Amino acid sequence: MLKIALAQVNFQVGNFENNVAKIIERISNAKQNKADLIVFSELAVCGYPARDFLTYQHFVTQCYKAIELIATHCQGICAIVGAPSPNTVVVGKNLYNSAYVVYDGKVQNVVNKCLLPTYDVFDEYRYFESNTDFNCINYKGVKIALTVCEDLWDVDTDKLYKYSPMDELAKQQPDVMINIAASPFDYQHREDRLRVFKFNCQKYNLPLVYVNQVGAQTELIFDGGSLALDSNGDIVQELNYFTEDLLYIGLNNKSLERLEIQPYAVVPSNSKIARIHDALILGIRDYFEKLGFTKAILGLSGGIDSALVAVLAVRALGNNNVKVLLLPSEFSSEHSINDALALVKTLNIEHEIVNIEQANNAVEATLANAFSSLPFNVAEENIQARLRGLLLMAHTNKFGSVLLNTTNKSEAAVGYGTLYGDMCGGLAVLGDVYKTECYELAHYINKDTEVIPTNSIVKPPSAELRPNQKDSDSLPDYDILDAVLRGYIEQRLSAAELIDKGFDAALVNRVLTMVNRNEYKRFQMAPVLRVSPKAFGIGRRMPLEGKYTYL
Amino acid sequence: MLKIALAQVNFQVGNFENNVAKIIERISNAKQNKADLIVFSELAVCGYPARDFLTYQHFVTQCYKAIELIATHCQGICAIVGAPSPNTVVVGKNLYNSAYVVYDGKVQNVVNKCLLPTYDVFDEYRYFESNTDFNCINYKGVKIALTVCEDLWDVDTDKLYKYSPMDELAKQQPDVMINIAASPFDYQHREDRLRVFKFNCQKYNLPLVYVNQVGAQTELIFDGGSLALDSNGDIVQELNYFTEDLLYIGLNNKSLERLEIQPYAVVPSNSKIARIHDALILGIRDYFEKLGFTKAILGLSGGIDSALVAVLAVRALGNNNVKVLLLPSEFSSEHSINDALALVKTLNIEHEIVNIEQANNAVEATLANAFSSLPFNVAEENIQARLRGLLLMAHTNKFGSVLLNTTNKSEAAVGYGTLYGDMCGGLAVLGDVYKTECYELAHYINKDTEVIPTNSIVKPPSAELRPNQKDSDSLPDYDILDAVLRGYIEQRLSAAELIDKGFDAALVNRVLTMVNRNEYKRFQMAPVLRVSPKAFGIGRRMPLEGKYTYL
Repeated sequence: MLKIALAQVNFQVGNFENNVAKIIERISNAKQNKADLIVFSELAVCGYPARDFLTYQHFVTQCYKAIELIATHCQGICAIVGAPSPNTVVVGKNLYNSAYVVYDGKVQNVVNKCLLPTYDVFDEYRYFESNTDFNCINYKGVKIALTVCEDLWDVDTDKLYKYSPMDELAKQQPDVMINIAASPFDYQHREDRLRVFKFNCQKYNLPLVYVNQVGAQTELIFDGGSLALDSNGDIVQELNYFTEDLLYIGLNNKSLERLEIQPYAVVPSNSKIARIHDALILGIRDYFEKLGFTKAILGLSGGIDSALVAVLAVRALGNNNVKVLLLPSEFSSEHSINDALALVKTLNIEHEIVNIEQANNAVEATLANAFSSLPFNVAEENIQARLRGLLLMAHTNKFGSVLLNTTNKSEAAVGYGTLYGDMCGGLAVLGDVYKTECYELAHYINKDTEVIPTNSIVKPPSAELRPNQKDSDSLPDYDILDAVLRGYIEQRLSAAELIDKGFDAALVNRVLTMVNRNEYKRFQMAPVLRVSPKAFGIGRRMPLEGKYTYL
Repeated sequence: MLKIALAQVNFQVGNFENNVAKIIERISNAKQNKADLIVFSELAVCGYPARDFLTYQHFVTQCYKAIELIATHCQGICAIVGAPSPNTVVVGKNLYNSAYVVYDGKVQNVVNKCLLPTYDVFDEYRYFESNTDFNCINYKGVKIALTVCEDLWDVDTDKLYKYSPMDELAKQQPDVMINIAASPFDYQHREDRLRVFKFNCQKYNLPLVYVNQVGAQTELIFDGGSLALDSNGDIVQELNYFTEDLLYIGLNNKSLERLEIQPYAVVPSNSKIARIHDALILGIRDYFEKLGFTKAILGLSGGIDSALVAVLAVRALGNNNVKVLLLPSEFSSEHSINDALALVKTLNIEHEIVNIEQANNAVEATLANAFSSLPFNVAEENIQARLRGLLLMAHTNKFGSVLLNTTNKSEAAVGYGTLYGDMCGGLAVLGDVYKTECYELAHYINKDTEVIPTNSIVKPPSAELRPNQKDSDSLPDYDILDAVLRGYIEQRLSAAELIDKGFDAALVNRVLTMVNRNEYKRFQMAPVLRVSPKAFGIGRRMPLEGKYTYL
């Protein structure tokens, strides 16, 4: 039997010291547990995605040194570790995205990734050359088909790549597939992953050991969920989600077996909203930890979005590390303050009430001459939102905290928010969560006890920037709006196709115009925690000056 | 003789109606001038870069329809036009980046790009499959080696790509090379281009016709400068820079000749600063034109950066379309107002003096309780900068103008600027111009007459956010700072390598720490007009949460 350790680790990009220490600690653990082989995730030594760090020779050199150091610990055990490797021929990009096979104190094999995802949030061909040389690894009499992430993913009819690495490796009659990955979370990713891996297991009639990165890296949240699958693609063992984990599995003659010393995996939730909830908490926690911050601040309006962010921040950082400002104006209703205070009490967090009227009056007086008798309009509305942003940012500067942004995906999509106002903040917690999903998330949080005041959930949403303002004055109902947005953003449908689906033509045109005209606001938006298959940010690169001809 | 028209056109991404109208108008002109062939730039029908528009089927369909429409105008003339084309096999990306050869009313050939730049600002493998099938085009007895942009650029020893399209085409013994391009400007790009094309002409002993896109597309500025080169790589004719142009050239038996009816090309300036000046003006002009705005506003501090932006804006948009606010505080010196007013007078632009003290006092009073007796620090400095941003943005909202950002590259690099304060704005005009280059630019603008007040140039730079503040209190001298920044950003040197070059170790570490810690500010910065080979923005993708191990 080959005893294999699956090491699911939270790495930080560029933090070689910590990453290598974590790897060595787990190798030591695996040796004590008499494992033959330990498997780490893709680009483990440098973290994923390292982006343009990979264009610095000095950074790449540190990756190589890390592998050398790890190799000195690989006596009596084999480690499979992800790191870049040099492309030594003069033609092509200078690096490969590789899996190093290390034992007897040195690197024995280097397996290079073939399929380089270059779509959505992925830019791998920016850095890496594609491998076209396929060889299985032999270790202790076991023939291993070792691949890196995407190499197992080109399974659909409309194939994205010319090569099929596993087709090539299968010709050499391997005993097991091992895949190392840095595959980011979205709320349907577990199902996609199980479908794709089942396809591979059944096609090649082989078991699979899959080790994924865990932890958030700015926008991208890696959910872990590493796997051992039998040759029918059924789960033998599944590692935990959203947390580091280490688990041993036995390989006997093409068959993976659960080892007695291990508990069954915790079955992950099938609820999309539960997953989003857990992912966002990890996203917040790692943003703060990896940037070296502890304290968060946000503006609490009494509405649902800021209430959600406050709850998630408390769950990620602890109630002692979250402070809220209540920033009422002349247009704030009584319930805004009361609902916010109710949440403050439930969460037991520090708060302050900072009325913006005095500052607002001073700004309006300053502009009185220029604005003379022009009527109140969006300019005055935005002044209020920007003053709130200014006051919150002043707190961050004075007390060294980070402002959390509370813009949801529906607002970000249609530009229902003030640039440099409520769009301020270091991290957009809900930027990939549609308003309708915010309601689901609030109900999920309240499922056992009322955490978020019911009134914050049931009252009509309002920016409260003019008397009796409601979101529904400017926007369609959120269930319709979100359906149109999903069609346009996620499914990339044209206006004509959306109208064909039964949406009102005027409404579709109005919504798409809003989305397109506000590209400039999203350009300057904080990083968005990605939880869906298509989030705003690096994964959606739309022209700012482009003419949008969506009809 | 084959009479060839080089059509250098300013396209807008997604503006099919205008782009196609411009193409047809030039075809008609070429027909009247009895040209045999007219050549347009890369992805002409949809504009470059179309980014994720290319992931919308509806957008791609409009490209195909545009080609069909253009074809109906190609009677008695051949047009070479850039557009995407479908990859009809089931394997690979769905599109090619193609040159259509159109005559006798229909598409006769489609030549697909092989080398897909996926580095710096380029993401072509995100959208396109690489072509590996190479055939020359025959037209009127002339054999043409037709390629798209990057296909001619892999000429260095450390080759980036496995294929050499021109090596393949050369085997078919063509008479001429034609290359269609969308190759963005930087201040050294003309020399790079002439070097690369000379290499090709000499290697294959062939003349070259090169047609480039002109015009700005948000960050990217396309400079035109289309070329006809003889088989030694010497210039037969060069089209104008930074403007649309159309020029005829004769091809006789592998020899290109200037036609009598055409004037010699205007020789472009060899001055880096003159080129930057012209490029920025085009960048501003096209940003406004393509987004449908006419009016710009900016804050004029009396310093050099805002003076430069005001001059460039006036040259791009006209003095009637530029308004400035002078926003003094208690810390503003007498000369700040005077120097700003002197420029206002010279430029003859609308201005307003808006003192921020009243609003600043109101904000400080609002925060008095929270900030209690804590000393004045960066929080109070940033309040002033953010109030200025707020007042300027209020003007844009009230009057429908766009705020121009005045942050220079040195400031953006080290984070010497206030997020949501002086970092506000729709377009960062100087975001790729180092402070030392700003001085050169000011001297260039003043070369014949004093446009920018000398005092704005010679006085020590200051943010004037506290008494007697100077940039040199917090930053190294700009000539040293800029040299370190260039080494780190452009040349990707490590701290150790910079220290080896003779820079002070403490200073290098301090500068690199500032650059890395402020990645979060640049993440939310306005689009930066790119004039150097490595600008902030889409061409430099550094991790925000990464640990920067630059030693």
